[in-house]
Amino acid sequence: MREDLRPFLEPRSVAVIGASASPGKPGHEVIDNILSNDYAGKVHLVNPKGGEILGLPVCRSIAELPPGIDMAIVILPANATPQAIRDCTEKGIRHFVLAAGGFAEVDEYGAELQQELIDLVREKGVRFIGPNTSGHTSTPHNFTSTFFPQGKIRRGRVSFIAQTGNFGTHTLKYILTGEHFGVCRVFGLGNKIDVDECDALDCLADDPETTAIIMYLESFKRPKEFMALASEVTRRKPVILLKGGATEEGRNAAVAHTAALASEDLIVDGLLRQAGVVRIYDYSHLILTAKVLSMLPLPKGNGVSFSAPSGAMLVVLADLCVRLGLKVPDLLPENTARLQEISPPYIRMRNPVDIWPAATSHGVEFGYREGTEAVLKDPNIHAVVPVLMLTKKTGIPPYDFIVDLQRKYPEKLILVTFSADKAYMEECKAYLEPRGVPTFPSIEEPFEVLSILYRCYQAMHRPR
Amino acid sequence: MREDLRPFLEPRSVAVIGASASPGKPGHEVIDNILSNDYAGKVHLVNPKGGEILGLPVCRSIAELPPGIDMAIVILPANATPQAIRDCTEKGIRHFVLAAGGFAEVDEYGAELQQELIDLVREKGVRFIGPNTSGHTSTPHNFTSTFFPQGKIRRGRVSFIAQTGNFGTHTLKYILTGEHFGVCRVFGLGNKIDVDECDALDCLADDPETTAIIMYLESFKRPKEFMALASEVTRRKPVILLKGGATEEGRNAAVAHTAALASEDLIVDGLLRQAGVVRIYDYSHLILTAKVLSMLPLPKGNGVSFSAPSGAMLVVLADLCVRLGLKVPDLLPENTARLQEISPPYIRMRNPVDIWPAATSHGVEFGYREGTEAVLKDPNIHAVVPVLMLTKKTGIPPYDFIVDLQRKYPEKLILVTFSADKAYMEECKAYLEPRGVPTFPSIEEPFEVLSILYRCYQAMHRPR
Repeated sequence: MREDLRPFLEPRSVAVIGASASPGKPGHEVIDNILSNDYAGKVHLVNPKGGEILGLPVCRSIAELPPGIDMAIVILPANATPQAIRDCTEKGIRHFVLAAGGFAEVDEYGAELQQELIDLVREKGVRFIGPNTSGHTSTPHNFTSTFFPQGKIRRGRVSFIAQTGNFGTHTLKYILTGEHFGVCRVFGLGNKIDVDECDALDCLADDPETTAIIMYLESFKRPKEFMALASEVTRRKPVILLKGGATEEGRNAAVAHTAALASEDLIVDGLLRQAGVVRIYDYSHLILTAKVLSMLPLPKGNGVSFSAPSGAMLVVLADLCVRLGLKVPDLLPENTARLQEISPPYIRMRNPVDIWPAATSHGVEFGYREGTEAVLKDPNIHAVVPVLMLTKKTGIPPYDFIVDLQRKYPEKLILVTFSADKAYMEECKAYLEPRGVPTFPSIEEPFEVLSILYRCYQAMHRPR
Repeated sequence: MREDLRPFLEPRSVAVIGASASPGKPGHEVIDNILSNDYAGKVHLVNPKGGEILGLPVCRSIAELPPGIDMAIVILPANATPQAIRDCTEKGIRHFVLAAGGFAEVDEYGAELQQELIDLVREKGVRFIGPNTSGHTSTPHNFTSTFFPQGKIRRGRVSFIAQTGNFGTHTLKYILTGEHFGVCRVFGLGNKIDVDECDALDCLADDPETTAIIMYLESFKRPKEFMALASEVTRRKPVILLKGGATEEGRNAAVAHTAALASEDLIVDGLLRQAGVVRIYDYSHLILTAKVLSMLPLPKGNGVSFSAPSGAMLVVLADLCVRLGLKVPDLLPENTARLQEISPPYIRMRNPVDIWPAATSHGVEFGYREGTEAVLKDPNIHAVVPVLMLTKKTGIPPYDFIVDLQRKYPEKLILVTFSADKAYMEECKAYLEPRGVPTFPSIEEPFEVLSILYRCYQAMHRPR
């Protein structure tokens, strides 16, 4: 990993400048988060009032801090931030996370303050994340600098770079409360006056803990460098990007947000494609693609099979696959024969798979299990989506056979979705996801994600 | 309502031919469903074994049935169905729901059997729903003929016409367990040898209980009649259609499903547009549009406002609105001024609304309430989407202010979505939806639905 950024991701000790004794204040929540994540390094606090916060002693000034601290999280008003940094540099601190907003994204005065920070980078050789960042997270090191109340942040293998405070705060909160996967590193770039998307991408490219990178950007600070870097990284790891501000309306909203005018969209689009970056458009897909990338490999092709307890769903999903660039190929004769074998003679089995006749003839578990394995075996099929019919009265398959099949065919993807009773959907999700099988409440979502991940696979294997 | 179809939707008495004493069998579940729905009419059962099922006496033959029964639900194998119908006609029964599959959708022999049914319609003047139907539902009459275990079916004001058994069975089960709205009439058309989409649409057009019609079709039995009829109905009620088999792959799946070759898609598309039918493409949208139509009026324009606790979400959602044909208009000066008044001076307020500064300055409830009302007041805004930030530590707004605002502005739509803690999303949904405010787990969905409903509004007011 890039040595100049290592103190951000693996700090041996940190200082919180602007520590607060009041729960709810950012200067308090950040300490609570650090402690909740079992950070093993030393945590120093600074507040003029001194005393103790959450059991830790508080220095009355930066001057009282011991030397040798790796990183400082500065949670002070914008106008107090530059002086605090100067004071910290006296103590040898070179890495800073700057939480305050109120810089160039706000007004002229803020822009002047921001320039003061930029000058500090040049003069003192310090490194900043922010300002106007909601912090960053590094679960392999049990560390976070976010001031949004998170509690323990689950560890995962997908990392995020976000030009928004939103991802590392409430979106992460959703992931921690509503999903079963975790995150690896999360960079909240803020106004990115120093550490920008290129630095973060470069850092994650060589991070052995990171297997995929998902980004939200509203602008490119160094477009040429970004495209060159991404061209190389995308051959090794999937890089997925949601680019905010694709339209005039979005750009107007972006100006108010992080003081960066979103770039001309069509040109960007072509450059990203060339660089192997897979562009997405829905915020929800940031979460859904991360879920699958946290559990499964990329699909090695776009051949999809799905089984549903409904002909109409098969029809609609086949239409959807076409729209998404996925194929619903014919199976090898022996696999079609197996599907036919488990089904009543009146139905002619094929891909996609009408599973309910087999399920009603031989039991719901048998039908889904044998039907899913018959298509998993097929070399034309790279991913399988069983639409599980879940109602008590028609019989609910035990979910473990899906986990077993996923382990037996680790190179293929099983993405589960549901029909019928909501209560069992939650139960099924809670069983499957901690065991490495992603589930989706809407039947379209697995296909949307497969389409994105197949584009990642293509990007990774594109000709030079 | 059409008198010839009234006995289906408002039967005074019914017979179940093929009643079964075995729980789980269709012939049993249909009786259970009828009883669970508090049907007020008389229920007659027929099974050669006689005895009693679920407390009701069982006739040993159709001949034993009393005269004057409005409708029979025939749950017998395909080859026994025609004779049962003939026997029933001897008893004066003229309306039939035919559950059996195994007709033209299966093989040659099935096609012959189906022809026998068609001949019966001609000879005996009887009316059929099906065959190969999973039944129909009529909540204003507390009646259902579905054999899929449903329990009590919640009443609503949106009706469905589905050329698939799926909608009235497991999709309805999902609606009953995972959502808070109900349904009005549900036609499961099956192989539609008699009652087809034209009959059903015609019937619902004049049904005072039905305010909107949502359809799933794989083919048009009488395309010209359908388009002519739809052209007229869509001026009075929204008609939304998911047409399965838009692609070659989908068509292949459709042939196996209901024995109808899906029609040529592009021509269909133009005709539907002319007829004012709003076409959708995602199965999930059948449910989501029904949810909003069950609670709120159509948007009277495409002016949308949304408030989020995140600049990035504002940017992404503004982009999404453009893709969906929605507008994010500027507000009248007095409404912008109100937004500015509740926000700290450093942020320049506009539509879309960055709500978090107001929420942190004056409290989460105050921020969302006042921010939402400021935009609801605006004549350029027809629908408002608050993205509620829900975490205990940052403060959760009491949900009732949203209900109050929806009641105060009944001509506008408030569609709620969320960020952050999953647990509170479920809580919020459970509070708001029974009180008439729809919620959405994904932040894109409210906009997708608004786009569809605005097209319905346009269709309804299109020039003649």
